[in-house]
Amino acid sequence: MPAASPASFAPDSGPRSAAATPQPVDLILTDIDWLVTCDPAMTVIESGAVAIRGDRIVALGPTDQLTARFAAAQRVALTGHLLLPGLVNTHAHAAMSLFRGLADDLPLERWLFEVIFPAESRHMNADRVHLGTLLAGLEMLQGGITTCCDGYFFEEAAALAFQETGMRAVLGQGVVDFPAPDLADPSRLEDRLSAFAEAFPHADGRLKPGLFCHAPYTCGPATLQRVKGICRERDWLFQIHLNETRDETARLTAEHGEPPTLYLDRLGVLDHRTLCAHAVWMQREEIERLAERRTAVSHNVHSNMKLASGVAPVPAMIAAGITVGLGTDGCASNNTLDLFREMDRTAKLHKAVSGDPTVCPARQVLHLATLGGAAALGLAELTGSIEAGKKADLVALDLRQPHLTPLYDPVSHLVYCARASDVTQVWIDGRRVVQDRRVLTLDGDEVRREAAAAGAMIGRGR
Amino acid sequence: MPAASPASFAPDSGPRSAAATPQPVDLILTDIDWLVTCDPAMTVIESGAVAIRGDRIVALGPTDQLTARFAAAQRVALTGHLLLPGLVNTHAHAAMSLFRGLADDLPLERWLFEVIFPAESRHMNADRVHLGTLLAGLEMLQGGITTCCDGYFFEEAAALAFQETGMRAVLGQGVVDFPAPDLADPSRLEDRLSAFAEAFPHADGRLKPGLFCHAPYTCGPATLQRVKGICRERDWLFQIHLNETRDETARLTAEHGEPPTLYLDRLGVLDHRTLCAHAVWMQREEIERLAERRTAVSHNVHSNMKLASGVAPVPAMIAAGITVGLGTDGCASNNTLDLFREMDRTAKLHKAVSGDPTVCPARQVLHLATLGGAAALGLAELTGSIEAGKKADLVALDLRQPHLTPLYDPVSHLVYCARASDVTQVWIDGRRVVQDRRVLTLDGDEVRREAAAAGAMIGRGR
Repeated sequence: MPAASPASFAPDSGPRSAAATPQPVDLILTDIDWLVTCDPAMTVIESGAVAIRGDRIVALGPTDQLTARFAAAQRVALTGHLLLPGLVNTHAHAAMSLFRGLADDLPLERWLFEVIFPAESRHMNADRVHLGTLLAGLEMLQGGITTCCDGYFFEEAAALAFQETGMRAVLGQGVVDFPAPDLADPSRLEDRLSAFAEAFPHADGRLKPGLFCHAPYTCGPATLQRVKGICRERDWLFQIHLNETRDETARLTAEHGEPPTLYLDRLGVLDHRTLCAHAVWMQREEIERLAERRTAVSHNVHSNMKLASGVAPVPAMIAAGITVGLGTDGCASNNTLDLFREMDRTAKLHKAVSGDPTVCPARQVLHLATLGGAAALGLAELTGSIEAGKKADLVALDLRQPHLTPLYDPVSHLVYCARASDVTQVWIDGRRVVQDRRVLTLDGDEVRREAAAAGAMIGRGR
Repeated sequence: MPAASPASFAPDSGPRSAAATPQPVDLILTDIDWLVTCDPAMTVIESGAVAIRGDRIVALGPTDQLTARFAAAQRVALTGHLLLPGLVNTHAHAAMSLFRGLADDLPLERWLFEVIFPAESRHMNADRVHLGTLLAGLEMLQGGITTCCDGYFFEEAAALAFQETGMRAVLGQGVVDFPAPDLADPSRLEDRLSAFAEAFPHADGRLKPGLFCHAPYTCGPATLQRVKGICRERDWLFQIHLNETRDETARLTAEHGEPPTLYLDRLGVLDHRTLCAHAVWMQREEIERLAERRTAVSHNVHSNMKLASGVAPVPAMIAAGITVGLGTDGCASNNTLDLFREMDRTAKLHKAVSGDPTVCPARQVLHLATLGGAAALGLAELTGSIEAGKKADLVALDLRQPHLTPLYDPVSHLVYCARASDVTQVWIDGRRVVQDRRVLTLDGDEVRREAAAAGAMIGRGR
């Protein structure tokens, strides 16, 4: 069993006597059947507790020890529950939730050019991006996702929506070299990016701006270098789709005389603040180059399977030391924003294609969805694990259900059995945002009604 | 859109005037947002209704037409819901729910010989099979599975448990040529099978007995022929695991000088009342032989992926005309009994490995989980679709959730978005067995408590 009962995980635990005065904290979560910390050692504590002051975790440990050490203004007993850190979605186009199920089972080119691009150009504007992002936030919060790395057009509208959700997010304004829904004239890119920076709600500490060059086949070298330059100046995350399909990868390789990863490296856009989504058709030297540059990868297993893009070499990328996170991609190609499904699928697909059932074991996959994902976004100091000193981004699952009974290993259950609907409580920055499966930060009924109405218009407009 | 509004689906609709007296029925379900019939044409009716008399569907159609034609003792409005036929699980070892997550990420031989077989021999008895099957029934009912084809030891105990659940089931008593948990001396097989037949609750019309020869590598030719003979005499379904792993398939092929399917056919055990589970490592001529013999296949995508068994040639088997259903397999290798996950995975895995996103489209996969599965079990006349004259096995899903919003195509949502937890109501034989997500036929808390206690003993005994 992976259980451990360390004497103390508190950073502030100096010499103390049994009779020490309990320290005041704002909130203590107690009687947690299984506290799955997702720390680097994947420590699991049975009958655990977490003490929280303000937006930070102060300490964690066995319930009896923590309740003796801390006097809490509020105590929440999580009997029958498992607690884990908020999940980290490293790749999404949240607003595309409005296109959920608009087209399936089509050849990639028809899907993209006959359905998705026309729908974006006809139906996407700042209001729709705001609405679609709220819908996505609702789904993600209910499913225990507390941090999301997004990339789309009208991204300041997405930022405002994420601000309403209370989530932690990295928001990448989308960039392509052709006319986009939010930029008719691509020569005015600098103005567009300035406007984005200005409208971004910087005051919300949970939100980080970034830029998202769509792909090396939609952004030329000058754009890639200029956009990465802006990101470097401002310490923003630079996102890009890399080697998603075999055709695109082959075309780019032929065009530039080297594989896309080496081409991007030659342009100087690969470093530890670049995040590559998909990374499916990777040659050995490309994997090594990403590792060398400390460039992270977002693995999007559902999207890659549904669009028949291929199978990313995740075990090889992890073995090479690349920081890998999991991503849902957008709802036009998934069709849900559910990291429990992504975890299960990641663990199983790589077993299936390698013929080796020991590949991508549960603890490794849980790491990808939590601390690995946080590291990919440059947020590992803040979130992705339950450790003293970190932000209190916490998710409770109700274990008292047939599909989670019996329980031999909580990590196995998280990867192979749990569903998004098992999430009952979510805290972000120590603030409760989901209570008894209800999102507190949004009017869920209203968001769903508006999204359904938008869908009715989009459906008619096909 | 796949909607249709035929004037009438009723078999008893002769010439009638608008002023005809409404016919009495017991139950009418009305105002169903999307009635997904899963009939051979995959007809979908918007704002649909279903009229039920006793255990049978009398008619279906648009709500306004049906409410005019029928006077119902009880009316249930399903506003905001989708209705589909009860899902059919064509391969399970229900009692193994007690081993859920007992061992993961192990090489197949270690998993089987070091964990599963010892656990079965140490911990499985009639009481445990009864308890594990109740737990599985609870999970399946909550997830909209109304029919299950099971195969295990102590199968009369499983039958009694399925009787308590109210589910429809085919129960295959397990047969191997070595000592088994319920038969220490395999030479006494005839006595064991007689005892099974005698103890079987034949009075419950929803339950059908059958026999389950574990595999051609654990049952010799004499056993295979004798057991199939008994099935033929009694019109019982004969189940067998076929070509699950590459090694087993290669060994058998070498041993018999022909691929396992042809060997089984030479023994005379393949016909339309034989169901082969897995069928992963199938040669062309084996696929053709199954089609020729009208032998059905249960596809177990999660289990095959997790154990790295391989990828079954499902598109080729369907193209050859084989009747294919979906199965969850047992919880030791899945680890849940969730046909929504199986549908999504089936649709996506075969896209991923073929590189063709048009493979296994949503309607085809939904057919496998419903009418296809019923046909595989020989129950297509009774269940698997919502059609007049069939048993009222019905499942309602609550669509008013972010991950199901917006909705462009209900069939797409069932395969690519819906979760077992979206199921709110289930009827079997016209009787409500799940109401507002609560199973009415079982004491769920009690079953979970007992299963957790059994799990605690099994976990210690490892």
